Amino acid sequence: MTIPGSIVPPARLLMGPGPISAYPSVLTAMSAPLVGQYDPFMTATMNETQELYRQVWATTNDATVLVDGTSRAGIEAAIVSLIRPGDRVLVPVFGRFGHLLTEIAERAGAEVHKIETEWGQVFPASVIEEAIVRVKPTLLAVVQGDTSTTMLQPLEDLGAICAKHGVLFYTDATASLGGNAFEADAWGLDAATSGLQKCLGGPSGSSPITLSEKAVAVIRSRAKIEAGIREDGDPDAADFVRSNYFDLGMILDYWGPRRLNHHTEATSMLYGARECARLLLAEGRDAVITRHEIAGAAMLAGVEALGLQVFGDVAHKMTNVVAVEIPEGVAGDAARGAMLDDFGIEIGTSFGPLHGRVWRIGTMGYNARKDTVLTTLAALESVLRRFGASVPAGGGVEAALDVYAGV
Amino acid sequence: MTIPGSIVPPARLLMGPGPISAYPSVLTAMSAPLVGQYDPFMTATMNETQELYRQVWATTNDATVLVDGTSRAGIEAAIVSLIRPGDRVLVPVFGRFGHLLTEIAERAGAEVHKIETEWGQVFPASVIEEAIVRVKPTLLAVVQGDTSTTMLQPLEDLGAICAKHGVLFYTDATASLGGNAFEADAWGLDAATSGLQKCLGGPSGSSPITLSEKAVAVIRSRAKIEAGIREDGDPDAADFVRSNYFDLGMILDYWGPRRLNHHTEATSMLYGARECARLLLAEGRDAVITRHEIAGAAMLAGVEALGLQVFGDVAHKMTNVVAVEIPEGVAGDAARGAMLDDFGIEIGTSFGPLHGRVWRIGTMGYNARKDTVLTTLAALESVLRRFGASVPAGGGVEAALDVYAGV
Repeated sequence: MTIPGSIVPPARLLMGPGPISAYPSVLTAMSAPLVGQYDPFMTATMNETQELYRQVWATTNDATVLVDGTSRAGIEAAIVSLIRPGDRVLVPVFGRFGHLLTEIAERAGAEVHKIETEWGQVFPASVIEEAIVRVKPTLLAVVQGDTSTTMLQPLEDLGAICAKHGVLFYTDATASLGGNAFEADAWGLDAATSGLQKCLGGPSGSSPITLSEKAVAVIRSRAKIEAGIREDGDPDAADFVRSNYFDLGMILDYWGPRRLNHHTEATSMLYGARECARLLLAEGRDAVITRHEIAGAAMLAGVEALGLQVFGDVAHKMTNVVAVEIPEGVAGDAARGAMLDDFGIEIGTSFGPLHGRVWRIGTMGYNARKDTVLTTLAALESVLRRFGASVPAGGGVEAALDVYAGV
Repeated sequence: MTIPGSIVPPARLLMGPGPISAYPSVLTAMSAPLVGQYDPFMTATMNETQELYRQVWATTNDATVLVDGTSRAGIEAAIVSLIRPGDRVLVPVFGRFGHLLTEIAERAGAEVHKIETEWGQVFPASVIEEAIVRVKPTLLAVVQGDTSTTMLQPLEDLGAICAKHGVLFYTDATASLGGNAFEADAWGLDAATSGLQKCLGGPSGSSPITLSEKAVAVIRSRAKIEAGIREDGDPDAADFVRSNYFDLGMILDYWGPRRLNHHTEATSMLYGARECARLLLAEGRDAVITRHEIAGAAMLAGVEALGLQVFGDVAHKMTNVVAVEIPEGVAGDAARGAMLDDFGIEIGTSFGPLHGRVWRIGTMGYNARKDTVLTTLAALESVLRRFGASVPAGGGVEAALDVYAGV
């Protein structure tokens, strides 16, 4: 094998369901020099990052940290740490990532009960409460935004329902956090997880997580300090978490004042995660959500003006992604290929029943902007026409501009 | 909270047991623009990175990938994917990271048998074979280099022993790979894992792994494609791997031609991991090991010339790190603090019985260089004197220079 040169990625405007193009300053932060894992600067940066993410999550939870892995690492850490084998878990499934929660809970030994609704819909709180009464789960695990369908499950009433029935309330907000309202404390969340590669505008590889005191108490009741660093008097529970890497008790001890060695924190990902939160808070949490709302509304108006049929219940769509039916007679994958090859713009398809049936177009993080919306719509119009669809000239761009003009 | 500015780490020369200062071009690679996860450039980069790591590991194993997490993520992926609950695992423990292997195997439900030797020593192959005959394990799990003691376990005879007794042979080479000989195929390894933050000269957060065909067959026998993307005819084993994130079968399907969605590959970490391997191979595998041997020999000569007592069996020391006893009367942590605060140089202490008793000084990856060795020795001489130790003026630097002069 000839040794290749340094990496030179092609220019891409990532307008799919994520990952999306990172904020330039996040990429700059990723290349900052490393420091040692117990350097005062490192521990101060970890503390500072915790405080930044408390604001992102809208929580006072002390237990607000990063899990070193992609979004599903955070999901697995939450589930495997919160449930014991045999515990009942209720998962409302409204897309592919609901299935993922059932999958992860099943692997962790849970007795998983799911309720399902048609892809493109969400659940009324009453339906979830009925299932809670019937199943009596230890944990309710629900995705906030299921990127496979673009739907956003309303969470604001579920915390009170869970509290009433003594159920832990967990959500995964990977696809939604930063671009849609999220209130960890006000909504009564016991655990929430996310990733950087959607509305937070960073690379995949770090999973922000926050845990309520109730969740931490469950985790602490299963504490087991690992052999090799255990000291006299350290806990050693028999019903320990069935993963070392995802044992949130040990992860909290590493982030907490005891700084008990666990993994070696992924320093560059920490720098990136910190910058994602810093940018969001510097712009303002509400301002960022508004920017996503406007970009999402402009993209929605644009694709509708191009004559595309929007998939699912638009009233419950995430701000940051829209799914459209691929028009009859248009070769979907080839058209996506032309978007990428000719314009350098990526849009996505979806999973399972929606694979090859819809395109998903995202407007998130750094790319929730007027220029990216307009460029994408202009390119899409051109590609649709070339692939045989009948599209009104300039309609998509005009409709999107109208949304921006009306703000 | 006032929103802080962009990250500006202090200048540090990381001469501890790792993480160490990354190669500048690795940091540059970390800030390269993102592409989509199924972009032709992305999948080509994944393929290319696999091929680079095959050369790093000295293997033809098709199943050579990255696990998205820190080194212990790779360890847990290997162990949880290779063993079923109740399987016997044999772990020869000669330091803290041997204990970690027992811990991770125990969490995965294994019946763990360990043999121990004094910290600072390694095992003769015959002792490991005797234990294999007695325990009849499914898996032998052994650390190659245990950074807690600096010892390097010889592996070259263990593959044949494992093959003879029908035992899977796994090693973690996090602390050693790149700075010490490693021959995955020639030594008969079934699984090996590593991390970037030691001799490979990158940040923590990505774990290279390679698996033999025999290991892949075990993993494939437990295949379960997750709900949400499962298609008719896909495997759905009852003895599935008890983790979704660490199910190497699904990770291989994501890296393989089927490109079956699992996690979203951590693009920036991939870029960094690729550059680590690229640099190593461009310099030459043997040349890099020789550079580590020389830097390690120079540091060893330097600390001995400063009158420091080296810990452990020097004949079995890793090239890339040395442990020295903290001299009587010297306040170890304060002296390390002075190294960091006054000179910007980090050295480490160790874990468990060695905490506060030894310092560990690393010469790895980018920092396996003459200038870093000399600078560290000059600073250490100054600090030792200021903290009350009697040290020969210039002796450490002179001794190290002599090693370089003799090369």
